[in-house]
Amino acid sequence: MDISMKEAAAFLREADDIVILCHRNPDGDTLGCGYGLWHALRALGKRAAVRCSDPLPHKLRFLAEGYREEAFSPKTVVSVDIADEQLFGEGLQEYLGRVDLAVDHHPSQTYFARRTLLEADSAAACEVVCLLAQELGVPFSAQMAACFYTGMATDTGCFKFSNTTPRTHRLAARMMELGCDYAEIGKRVFDTKTAGEFAIEREALNGMEVHFAGQAALIVLTQEMYARCGVSEADADGLAALPRKLEGVEVGITIKERGPGEYKISMRSVDRVNVSELCKLFGGGGHLRAAGCTISGSLDEVKTLLLGAVGRALEETA
Amino acid sequence: MDISMKEAAAFLREADDIVILCHRNPDGDTLGCGYGLWHALRALGKRAAVRCSDPLPHKLRFLAEGYREEAFSPKTVVSVDIADEQLFGEGLQEYLGRVDLAVDHHPSQTYFARRTLLEADSAAACEVVCLLAQELGVPFSAQMAACFYTGMATDTGCFKFSNTTPRTHRLAARMMELGCDYAEIGKRVFDTKTAGEFAIEREALNGMEVHFAGQAALIVLTQEMYARCGVSEADADGLAALPRKLEGVEVGITIKERGPGEYKISMRSVDRVNVSELCKLFGGGGHLRAAGCTISGSLDEVKTLLLGAVGRALEETA
Repeated sequence: MDISMKEAAAFLREADDIVILCHRNPDGDTLGCGYGLWHALRALGKRAAVRCSDPLPHKLRFLAEGYREEAFSPKTVVSVDIADEQLFGEGLQEYLGRVDLAVDHHPSQTYFARRTLLEADSAAACEVVCLLAQELGVPFSAQMAACFYTGMATDTGCFKFSNTTPRTHRLAARMMELGCDYAEIGKRVFDTKTAGEFAIEREALNGMEVHFAGQAALIVLTQEMYARCGVSEADADGLAALPRKLEGVEVGITIKERGPGEYKISMRSVDRVNVSELCKLFGGGGHLRAAGCTISGSLDEVKTLLLGAVGRALEETA
Repeated sequence: MDISMKEAAAFLREADDIVILCHRNPDGDTLGCGYGLWHALRALGKRAAVRCSDPLPHKLRFLAEGYREEAFSPKTVVSVDIADEQLFGEGLQEYLGRVDLAVDHHPSQTYFARRTLLEADSAAACEVVCLLAQELGVPFSAQMAACFYTGMATDTGCFKFSNTTPRTHRLAARMMELGCDYAEIGKRVFDTKTAGEFAIEREALNGMEVHFAGQAALIVLTQEMYARCGVSEADADGLAALPRKLEGVEVGITIKERGPGEYKISMRSVDRVNVSELCKLFGGGGHLRAAGCTISGSLDEVKTLLLGAVGRALEETA
């Protein structure tokens, strides 16, 4: 059932002993929502806890500042930034079918919860949770503002991507006035790389291939590279944006080895090729300009399959 | 003479045949000011022209969309985003001592003009010129909005640096509502690199040195590297931000070869070392966290000098 901001606020005012669920492989938006909402609920005098299947990424640990665990048996379950129960991950299986309120911004929301507050034109779920906290009338601490700001900044590539709206900027301005240390957040989230992240970026750049007269660029990330550079697959996620940055490239392809003979593909396009359609050819999907799929085979086979499909798409849209 | 926004607007309303000066090595802010103000003056029915010693960088050519040259003999000279006449460059020498109005945001403004509109707390000079255009009451075209947005975005590292203010975000929101294609601007300015830029970044990364138990990182850019990668020194300017991005680094050093035995140094720090003081030791200067100097000698000599000074500063601030 779709509910309004006011109805969601009314529901939370009546609720207590609330578990807040974040999606697996957590990012700044789901965690910003989770910890931001936790502070808002605490300010209302409620007991609450944040749950996620995966640990907090190193760069985002600051979001949990001021957070405390307390013992209670959950009466209410709220999910934030989760479009589909498949994104709960292994650690949250006990909450399947038990979500009372889902707060989200994904157009692909599957309405798995009893009540859903969806704002599909919001750049970040943090915008929705921020407005919900305003509706609840709680005072905003600097830490709450930092949580919401982080979600807005990370989901928009620091206000750069096309999903950014004037409202995103205005809410960010408000969070700055409420005391969030935006410069420190920007530095931690966007401008800091570990030695391992530098090393794997260097290897990826050194191996970047260019095809179709510069219209496609491709990088490969292998388990051996992760091990040599001492990084996790998640640490290397951001590299999928690299190939598309090359001037003249329409399609950027990142091939990530998952296991022997299994490759996860990320595709990005600039303004002609529908990479969601391309990835559907291989059983995947996604958005018009950012999509993914999984292909089995040798690396050479996977490359040949992908480049064949990309080449045809480039010709058809030329 | 310091003048107010209203006085600057009154001055421009009375002026005509206006030359707008941008600083040498032009960036998004000075050019956004220049072309944005040109459109505003044209909307007031005035003749105007934009002048700069150096050509428009490839990535910023879109700022000149809709710009036309027309013949007139200048009666009024306005400079934008220029703190000091030394930044006029060779092509603007004829305007030395002849500026009627300087519009700027640098605290280091030297008051070389007859009238100065200075807002030193503005993140970008484009914020000041944008407000000036509002004060003039001209209708904002999408192109004007794109010019001002570009200056605000580039001078703040896309709203990430500590100079960003709530007003910067709110003005950016307004420019978006006025139709500037912020996603395209973001992609061109922040997310596109030429093959040469990729190549020199790869070389710089491959040669990055780490000193003082990870507290300092250093890259070297040589004329040979520029030639091999087919880039200009200006194309490689952004690389000065690289060494500081390494986690744990307090001082990032970039050594750029200018000519035989002459090196230009860029230093960046995170939160302890005053790099302006450090660069003063070598006859340079700048800001607390970003400064520069020029040193003569062999590369090894320059490195030894710099690392000696950086090591002492790291010890003193430990």
